[in-house]
Amino acid sequence: MLVQVIPASMQASGAGIEFAPDGGVSVGPEFRALEAAWMEGVAAMARAGARVIIDEVFLGAAVSQQRWQRALGGLEVLWVAVRCDSAVAAGRELARGDRIGGMAVSQAEVVHRGVLYDLEVDTTHTESLACAEIIAARAG
Amino acid sequence: MLVQVIPASMQASGAGIEFAPDGGVSVGPEFRALEAAWMEGVAAMARAGARVIIDEVFLGAAVSQQRWQRALGGLEVLWVAVRCDSAVAAGRELARGDRIGGMAVSQAEVVHRGVLYDLEVDTTHTESLACAEIIAARAG
Amino acid sequence: MLVQVIPASMQASGAGIEFAPDGGVSVGPEFRALEAAWMEGVAAMARAGARVIIDEVFLGAAVSQQRWQRALGGLEVLWVAVRCDSAVAAGRELARGDRIGGMAVSQAEVVHRGVLYDLEVDTTHTESLACAEIIAARAG
Amino acid sequence: MLVQVIPASMQASGAGIEFAPDGGVSVGPEFRALEAAWMEGVAAMARAGARVIIDEVFLGAAVSQQRWQRALGGLEVLWVAVRCDSAVAAGRELARGDRIGGMAVSQAEVVHRGVLYDLEVDTTHTESLACAEIIAARAG
Repeated sequence: MLVQVIPASMQASGAGIEFAPDGGVSVGPEFRALEAAWMEGVAAMARAGARVIIDEVFLGAAVSQQRWQRALGGLEVLWVAVRCDSAVAAGRELARGDRIGGMAVSQAEVVHRGVLYDLEVDTTHTESLACAEIIAARAG
Repeated sequence: MLVQVIPASMQASGAGIEFAPDGGVSVGPEFRALEAAWMEGVAAMARAGARVIIDEVFLGAAVSQQRWQRALGGLEVLWVAVRCDSAVAAGRELARGDRIGGMAVSQAEVVHRGVLYDLEVDTTHTESLACAEIIAARAG
Repeated sequence: MLVQVIPASMQASGAGIEFAPDGGVSVGPEFRALEAAWMEGVAAMARAGARVIIDEVFLGAAVSQQRWQRALGGLEVLWVAVRCDSAVAAGRELARGDRIGGMAVSQAEVVHRGVLYDLEVDTTHTESLACAEIIAARAG
Repeated sequence: MLVQVIPASMQASGAGIEFAPDGGVSVGPEFRALEAAWMEGVAAMARAGARVIIDEVFLGAAVSQQRWQRALGGLEVLWVAVRCDSAVAAGRELARGDRIGGMAVSQAEVVHRGVLYDLEVDTTHTESLACAEIIAARAG
């Protein structure tokens, strides 16, 4: 994930990425520039023959998807929604113990608004492995 | 690092990557194909403007460097040797507690054979931060 | 957990603890001696007033419980079974990606044989947080 | 370490433990009560025959040592100072990337004030493994 490779300095400046105590996330111009380079690179790996899984939270919903669509132009992509009931997601966030409270609820619905999918799985009542098998069957 | 993103299945097959109990590492054709795609992607990120640090162990020494040189063609690269006396490296490997014993000794010299560098740092008697500052000063 | 504090040397000798490639676990006399000291210490923490959660896998089932019962003599204990259907447990083990395959199936039933509980929860179809709330309500 | 087992709720209340942005640490009455139970338990493990390494930062210096001395009464203890030049410690703190800046400098000297040791090691210019070997040789 991009958040794992961005420099620490970018997390400390308003131009990078900020995680608010209430679970909100905001990004600045430096983050956008790095994100664009990241997308170019991931797309280049796929064009070179690697089969890539992009596990992304679309904080900008449809706008986020459009950024990826442009970067992945010409590639065969399976768009998969991984949904979860927000109350269940909040419970899992709390049970994990290392997450910022409120992020799950604030993101559960928003990240899917206007996004177009080829396939949807829902982890609310379905095991992770079963969801993975559904996706793998379609990815061929 | 590439080893953090390769599929688990590739670690279990002779065609991927294997870590021997004595610290040896061997790779197969599937790993090479994935590595080539990885290099293309990292180079594409740099061409798109990201400043990238590649922290790599050249198991194939000069041959490994040539693979990266081809992938990074046209980009401005600062090649830095990060050396460490093999006895000290072995001690740090043991002190970390989560490494395969013997890997440090078997790699300490071999990975530098025939590799061409712009700059060399040695962590044997120099603190990591001081080494980082030397590199940062040259990277500009 | 005890397995997190035992010395590395004890994992490398037949007298300590061994994890077989098929998910089996076997322990030797040094492990038993250390385990007994561990139980004494955990019991002493509880007698000194700390409220302690012991998250234990009873590889010896009823015999394991008896060891703890002796160590915890005189203390108020709520024994809770945390069950999971073995096929679901095996799926979660695989999805986690860092477990030895087969451990979940081989342990799912065996660890509960002859063990006496005050309360049972089942994570097969119940969220972790909901299970935790059931336990917390009884622990008072 | 105790900080790894205290409940999350205790990190969020003034009665527990707080880590200030400047690297300062303050503890309240609930933390002290839990700490006392913890010390009782660790001492009980040693009395039951386990050989225990207590890796502790004496934020209260001599007062912290006295608490442990009372808990460990009657046991054979090797008190070891692990020192590090504060500038070097600050550099390692920064290089690790996951520490609160300022903690190393603010603690490097203070934690040793008035503490009585049987042995001293200094990691400023000595490798961790070499320090460990010096300690192991004395522990017998």
